[in-house]
Amino acid sequence: MDKKIKTVGLFGKYQDQAVIEHLHRLEEFLLGRQLKILLDQDTAEHIPGAKSPTRPRASIGHEINLAIVVGGDGTLLNVARELAPHHVPLIGVNLGRLGFLTDVPAEHMTTEIGKILDGDYQTERRLLLHAEIMRKGRIVHTASAFNDVIVSKGELARMIEFETYLDGEFVHSIRGDGIIVASPTGSTAYALSSGGPILHPTLDAIAVVPICPHTLSNRPIVVSSDSIVEILVSRLAGQHAHANFDGQSRIALKDGDRVYVRRAEHEVELLHPSGRSHFEMMRIKLHWGRKL
Amino acid sequence: MDKKIKTVGLFGKYQDQAVIEHLHRLEEFLLGRQLKILLDQDTAEHIPGAKSPTRPRASIGHEINLAIVVGGDGTLLNVARELAPHHVPLIGVNLGRLGFLTDVPAEHMTTEIGKILDGDYQTERRLLLHAEIMRKGRIVHTASAFNDVIVSKGELARMIEFETYLDGEFVHSIRGDGIIVASPTGSTAYALSSGGPILHPTLDAIAVVPICPHTLSNRPIVVSSDSIVEILVSRLAGQHAHANFDGQSRIALKDGDRVYVRRAEHEVELLHPSGRSHFEMMRIKLHWGRKL
Amino acid sequence: MDKKIKTVGLFGKYQDQAVIEHLHRLEEFLLGRQLKILLDQDTAEHIPGAKSPTRPRASIGHEINLAIVVGGDGTLLNVARELAPHHVPLIGVNLGRLGFLTDVPAEHMTTEIGKILDGDYQTERRLLLHAEIMRKGRIVHTASAFNDVIVSKGELARMIEFETYLDGEFVHSIRGDGIIVASPTGSTAYALSSGGPILHPTLDAIAVVPICPHTLSNRPIVVSSDSIVEILVSRLAGQHAHANFDGQSRIALKDGDRVYVRRAEHEVELLHPSGRSHFEMMRIKLHWGRKL
Amino acid sequence: MDKKIKTVGLFGKYQDQAVIEHLHRLEEFLLGRQLKILLDQDTAEHIPGAKSPTRPRASIGHEINLAIVVGGDGTLLNVARELAPHHVPLIGVNLGRLGFLTDVPAEHMTTEIGKILDGDYQTERRLLLHAEIMRKGRIVHTASAFNDVIVSKGELARMIEFETYLDGEFVHSIRGDGIIVASPTGSTAYALSSGGPILHPTLDAIAVVPICPHTLSNRPIVVSSDSIVEILVSRLAGQHAHANFDGQSRIALKDGDRVYVRRAEHEVELLHPSGRSHFEMMRIKLHWGRKL
Repeated sequence: MDKKIKTVGLFGKYQDQAVIEHLHRLEEFLLGRQLKILLDQDTAEHIPGAKSPTRPRASIGHEINLAIVVGGDGTLLNVARELAPHHVPLIGVNLGRLGFLTDVPAEHMTTEIGKILDGDYQTERRLLLHAEIMRKGRIVHTASAFNDVIVSKGELARMIEFETYLDGEFVHSIRGDGIIVASPTGSTAYALSSGGPILHPTLDAIAVVPICPHTLSNRPIVVSSDSIVEILVSRLAGQHAHANFDGQSRIALKDGDRVYVRRAEHEVELLHPSGRSHFEMMRIKLHWGRKL
Repeated sequence: MDKKIKTVGLFGKYQDQAVIEHLHRLEEFLLGRQLKILLDQDTAEHIPGAKSPTRPRASIGHEINLAIVVGGDGTLLNVARELAPHHVPLIGVNLGRLGFLTDVPAEHMTTEIGKILDGDYQTERRLLLHAEIMRKGRIVHTASAFNDVIVSKGELARMIEFETYLDGEFVHSIRGDGIIVASPTGSTAYALSSGGPILHPTLDAIAVVPICPHTLSNRPIVVSSDSIVEILVSRLAGQHAHANFDGQSRIALKDGDRVYVRRAEHEVELLHPSGRSHFEMMRIKLHWGRKL
Repeated sequence: MDKKIKTVGLFGKYQDQAVIEHLHRLEEFLLGRQLKILLDQDTAEHIPGAKSPTRPRASIGHEINLAIVVGGDGTLLNVARELAPHHVPLIGVNLGRLGFLTDVPAEHMTTEIGKILDGDYQTERRLLLHAEIMRKGRIVHTASAFNDVIVSKGELARMIEFETYLDGEFVHSIRGDGIIVASPTGSTAYALSSGGPILHPTLDAIAVVPICPHTLSNRPIVVSSDSIVEILVSRLAGQHAHANFDGQSRIALKDGDRVYVRRAEHEVELLHPSGRSHFEMMRIKLHWGRKL
Repeated sequence: MDKKIKTVGLFGKYQDQAVIEHLHRLEEFLLGRQLKILLDQDTAEHIPGAKSPTRPRASIGHEINLAIVVGGDGTLLNVARELAPHHVPLIGVNLGRLGFLTDVPAEHMTTEIGKILDGDYQTERRLLLHAEIMRKGRIVHTASAFNDVIVSKGELARMIEFETYLDGEFVHSIRGDGIIVASPTGSTAYALSSGGPILHPTLDAIAVVPICPHTLSNRPIVVSSDSIVEILVSRLAGQHAHANFDGQSRIALKDGDRVYVRRAEHEVELLHPSGRSHFEMMRIKLHWGRKL
């Protein structure tokens, strides 16, 4: 990190007043370290009296060498997707509730971030997903997802029917609530609630997890991150299906639509304080057993 | 395959009379194609009137370019482990009940094997596991496993307690029936019954699947095949634990023993007739939905 | 059955042409046995040339002693709920695909129904659920359900949060896709896909099954059918939740709504040919192992 | 309780020194309330200086009106089974780690037990299981179980095969690690780890939960407590199966053995301080969500 970090982007949880004080404190701390600060414009609107200049989220990635996100995992997912093409590493600060991604507690953030700025950190590369929706032979939508791409039934549907393909080879048809295509990062989110396995965060793999499938042997499948996972929404009329990206954006699907999910071109780079243990965070969040 | 295949080893299911007729038929067929046949000695003992010379299993790998195994998945697991250091590809012939590994039905075997000998085949590389048991600082046992290495409670135990580590980093402690460290091949065996995910057969990963853990959030974890998975049997007295390799050999563990599992140096090479679909086999065996 | 059966109501799957021929055949058969036939009006609209008089579904229950339903389980669920207050027993005829409830195959229906009319049958009583939705202290909706009452997230929600109570005692709060309150009949429907247990069809119990809960220890709970299960939709703004009855009717819920589910006053009475095995049907539908 | 309680039996965890101090304190407290104390003989052997007379466990039930068990759930299971025929109610005191059955913490035991002795308590009746093992037409073993009867593979077996019957009707055959027949009390013990549902403690039902079954649709089944569950160990040679009662006693099974499990004639009566919430205990032990 060291010398290369000159400009830091600050991002806060959308419309959360609790974030403001922490961002102010962070701004002071970073200015005190002679760093240039740029504020995410959406965040800045809610912070009266911020000293640093603001930039729109769409362009801020060109100017910063580090992004600090204060909020929950949802906020970080959002920022990470947008910054991925710019290769900007991220630090996640949580507001009291430990996140899978936001592992620096706000109360210790200046100490922890100080260490990171001093070069005492670990870098973790996480894969990002890229999705394309094809309708009648044309790509009608593209999106990236850090956690997961979900194809699921709409409000009026009792279930949906779809076929899955892997690198063009037919895998199975499923009737159920839907299916989750999750990155390792997303494997501890919705996919875990649906019975999926935990993928090690740096594993080059994608989990394909059916949601409440009618056939009980439709179990989660883990495939290489070089694979293309395809979900073909059945042509049966009235499926009322939709695709959902990180639970943050969505698009209605039409019968016969194909959703392709593959590894995105870019990765997300997370910075953690040195000595941080991924599994300690897991033990706390999932109430796993400690050393005997 | 083509020109390089000069000598074929034949292996049959241990002490299974049904195998004999098929092996005879196979021997005739292969001799008709001017191939040299070597019979696995354990198999040959049960086949009166076999024409071909026999070799002990321990050394047959030096002389053959192809192994044909007639039996079930259990037989193939066994032969595959032993031949792995010799880089001998295997064909699995089943006796009527489709296997995950033995996918050539005996009734079509001459046609299918004929095609393979003509060069019309797919090669599939599968990772093999290697296990070491360390007791008081010394390696006291090593074994390879094609499906899985299992640490589980013995007959007199109600449960066992152990800690898991990944590349030396503590993951969690578990109380339960045990834990399965499964290769992608083994992910459709015992690990699947214990709630594990299905790993794509060529994925470079290992599944770590707890068996009936007391803590319900102790879910399967999938890690890179470059990782070293370590199971430390708790020092509490009287654990009555044992380690088990492919369900075919086992060793009693003592309190404080460490079981290390990693990818073996060698791989297993399976040959399948061209056009064979892995997922079609899965659909049949698991009653998955066909095309809509 | 014998003497008491004088008038039979015929019901067919909604707008299904395949049903017509079977209903015609059934009508002829029953008329030949000197029974009076009444046709469900919704069904009759799609059957040109039916000889028997029709009755609206709302009132047909007053006049019939037996209902024969030709279609799938969905059709039977519907008819069963409407006839329950009239104590009319039901026979379910399937159109080729064995149902959990419609266990008489159409091709053998005259033989099987003939046996039942001759008195050679088993009666099975199944509990029906009754739901009430309370908003600001007033009951705003009531409904009955034969399979299940489901409270789940709406289309725009990523999850919902709710509290569950049993006979007024707080059980737990859950974040997830929703919750299923299932009768024994419904335990093999959606609840099974969500990880619920199979309840014996005549067990006096209700299964409470969370759908994809964030907390992995939120497991299905089975309670007495004398209990009142209450789901309190959290007051947090914008839950977008709805309640769903047998997957056939639904109502949008508002924050703070309470959904009460209890056993309905009336039961459903199913007639099966003598010697019919519930578990044989289960073995076929779920691919369970046969006798060894 | 009030006037009827004259004689209290005291039971402690087997060979646990930590129990002694608590038993001494309890003895003083109860003597102070003019109650007669009888010490369980197995417990007394480890308590130097106890003032009260001792009785063997086999006969103590004739003389006491209340049993207080200090230890964990395992200790209470044991005492409860032995006292059930004598209709002696039990209070469970835990030594710091909240138990499903031992819900009175040792540090508050005199206050809580004082309240109970003053008549301020709730009674909870729990069903007990009774098992019989039939070999070649003869009953060769009987046992009772408060948690569960388990039929499982022995140490040398990779799996066992068995058939299940309900009230004499064939249900299914299973290949796997075994099967658990659990009471509502046992539904939160081993059965929960094996994927079984939580049965309400007073539900008149039994859960039949397969352990790691090969067929993924072999799901837990909940049946009436009036049912007889039968497990027929397959006649295939060399099953190495055994039956296990509350994890505390066991017997080797032979091929062809039948294990019958039904509700025992007697129940277990637990006393809890008034206002105690079963679900609060569950929320603590299972980390369930609290009120929103």
